[in-house]
Amino acid sequence: MYRINENYQKLPASYLFSTIAKKVAAFTQENPDKPLIRLGIGDVTQPIAPAIINAMHQAVDEMSLASSFHGYAPDLGYEFLRSAIVKNDYAPKGCGIQEDEIFISDGAKSDSGNIQELFDINCKIAVTDPVYPVYVDSNVMAGRCGTYQEDSKTWSDIIYLPCVRENGFVPEFPKETPDMIYLCFPNNPTGTTITKTQLQEWVDYANRIGAVIIYDAAYEAYISEPDVAHSIYECEGARTCAIEIRSFSKNAGFTGVRLGFTVVPKELTCGGVSLHGMWARRHGTKYNGAPYIIQRAGEAVYSKEGKAQLKEQIAYYMKNASTIKEGLADAGYEVYGGVNAPYIWLKTPGQMRAWEFFDYLMEQANVVGTPGSGFGPSGEGYFRLTAFGSYENTTAAIERIKHCS
Amino acid sequence: MYRINENYQKLPASYLFSTIAKKVAAFTQENPDKPLIRLGIGDVTQPIAPAIINAMHQAVDEMSLASSFHGYAPDLGYEFLRSAIVKNDYAPKGCGIQEDEIFISDGAKSDSGNIQELFDINCKIAVTDPVYPVYVDSNVMAGRCGTYQEDSKTWSDIIYLPCVRENGFVPEFPKETPDMIYLCFPNNPTGTTITKTQLQEWVDYANRIGAVIIYDAAYEAYISEPDVAHSIYECEGARTCAIEIRSFSKNAGFTGVRLGFTVVPKELTCGGVSLHGMWARRHGTKYNGAPYIIQRAGEAVYSKEGKAQLKEQIAYYMKNASTIKEGLADAGYEVYGGVNAPYIWLKTPGQMRAWEFFDYLMEQANVVGTPGSGFGPSGEGYFRLTAFGSYENTTAAIERIKHCS
Repeated sequence: MYRINENYQKLPASYLFSTIAKKVAAFTQENPDKPLIRLGIGDVTQPIAPAIINAMHQAVDEMSLASSFHGYAPDLGYEFLRSAIVKNDYAPKGCGIQEDEIFISDGAKSDSGNIQELFDINCKIAVTDPVYPVYVDSNVMAGRCGTYQEDSKTWSDIIYLPCVRENGFVPEFPKETPDMIYLCFPNNPTGTTITKTQLQEWVDYANRIGAVIIYDAAYEAYISEPDVAHSIYECEGARTCAIEIRSFSKNAGFTGVRLGFTVVPKELTCGGVSLHGMWARRHGTKYNGAPYIIQRAGEAVYSKEGKAQLKEQIAYYMKNASTIKEGLADAGYEVYGGVNAPYIWLKTPGQMRAWEFFDYLMEQANVVGTPGSGFGPSGEGYFRLTAFGSYENTTAAIERIKHCS
Repeated sequence: MYRINENYQKLPASYLFSTIAKKVAAFTQENPDKPLIRLGIGDVTQPIAPAIINAMHQAVDEMSLASSFHGYAPDLGYEFLRSAIVKNDYAPKGCGIQEDEIFISDGAKSDSGNIQELFDINCKIAVTDPVYPVYVDSNVMAGRCGTYQEDSKTWSDIIYLPCVRENGFVPEFPKETPDMIYLCFPNNPTGTTITKTQLQEWVDYANRIGAVIIYDAAYEAYISEPDVAHSIYECEGARTCAIEIRSFSKNAGFTGVRLGFTVVPKELTCGGVSLHGMWARRHGTKYNGAPYIIQRAGEAVYSKEGKAQLKEQIAYYMKNASTIKEGLADAGYEVYGGVNAPYIWLKTPGQMRAWEFFDYLMEQANVVGTPGSGFGPSGEGYFRLTAFGSYENTTAAIERIKHCS
């Protein structure tokens, strides 16, 4: 008789966003007269930019003719896209990343879930806390996290790096030595970030202790301050210790278009084995490339028109972020983030717990957000609102919150 | 210091199709005057059908407006596509598959590589031999196959089910008891298949010994004989022992469009744990859905126009298959497959080894195929040609082969 991977059974039954979806469904059924405004899940609402739409139409037409049809894509992704990425994202910042160090994929979620496969099952992971659940859950499924401790809401074998208002949401080096360190800056869910100097300290630390950094830069397009790094490869020494994961979901609204990429530098080796070679092998064996049409959409993100249109789109969302941040501050809330990221992280009032505040906000203001505790124990007492709604909904939500404060 | 997943190091260095690509590149450089015809890799050449092109244009337009924009897809895939699949692929054959048992993905390769994650690391796998390399390699990467034995070209912990001319390419129950059985019918690479009665015997066997069957039905659209099952769920009892993986790559030419799905019936449980629930958890954690535009393309495959156009496309490829099969038989080769599948499997002449025949055919006929030994030890002495070329190239290739025989 076959047996299942028992690690799956260790995962707590409910996933954050499914629980929210259930609560929302129940509320909506009981209160059909109270339409909710959702500033919860990190999904975008603005349509795809015209330059990208044009590129997709053109690519669809190419697929309609034998002479321009495209079948299986190259394992790493099309050269036209990898070259646009290097030219626009890495070369101008002197990162020294080459085209063949970039692996195109269907999105940052898949890559950040799959990347742990390259590492030994006994590697110890460190995560900032609160954290994007995929890093933790994918490692739990692989059997790397020990057991879940219901009382502390932590995994026995994970090293947590608390990011709370007391340390300015900047993680500190842990006492225990990690093997794999997941960092995401600008951060989801806190909306805060660290400076390039602080990131350099993490790169130096990783090189010193022999750890690998999995760096999620999904929100880099929202950076507005000059002392924040857009890529970890802006830091000296990152090529020997860091893998960077990027997404098109947030800079170009590709949550339903699906495109991302991962950078694995060739200097990243462990005992003489190239992690680049390993990731290439995984891509070649368990993946078959992003659609041609979608890779052309990605290329258009870097066109002159595409860049101009997306600059406006990001400005639109960041105007929402300011609206939320200022509105909540006016209403007396303690708020963080929203300057280099499309997320606002607020401290719940009084001793209110995160899920209590979720219910309070849904019932009193008819606004849906995300309880910070869903992202880890240090998220307790915090709450996330996203700037990805429409401007109209965002201002309306803030008015409602102010009104019931 | 972190450590890598050492299982990756166990994989023999070269992947079948990369080796072919290198040999082809070298030949082409040395012989610029001898253009090769490639009937090797299973990539299609016919353009995407008009009904599908139209659906994609329409979906692209939807993405250009806020009112019809689609962000994150539902975890299992859009209902419109899952419902079209049930209605067209399963209901007419009385398979009893429900919409919520279907998981849309970016393709059968990803799913067949990822599905092993659901099972215990000590499960013993059985594969037909020769076999699509992904089943084996993905299990090697997970540490499930023991060590590679260079002399026999086998993995110490895999149960091989030889499919050779002596047994009519029909696998026999092994002496040792497997936990996971990979079956692909119509078969890649042999192009042969088994009858529904024979498949029923495998389903009964799996239920009897408590094994799970991973059934790859990527080539079902090419079935021409009435006694061959299009889905394993046509067999009684399959809902308690089988997962089925399907692709749009071969029935609709989606190798560069990327779409597939996996069926996990709700009755499939192990010690009371639902594999459907586990796969849903994996989808929710490590994947973010196929693009909206591509799911609409999939829906169009099942439209009246789409079905008519794809019937022609499949007939086109199957005409190639007949051309290859008859041509090679005329030239004195022993040939198999090509009736219910787009692959022709030929016995190499005399005692010629598969890679020898590869070199012979490339050098003498300037035709590229795939050495059978690349698919496993029982593929030695066999060779695969695919029907996915253009009709012109296919007939030209056969003329060349005849000419040098």
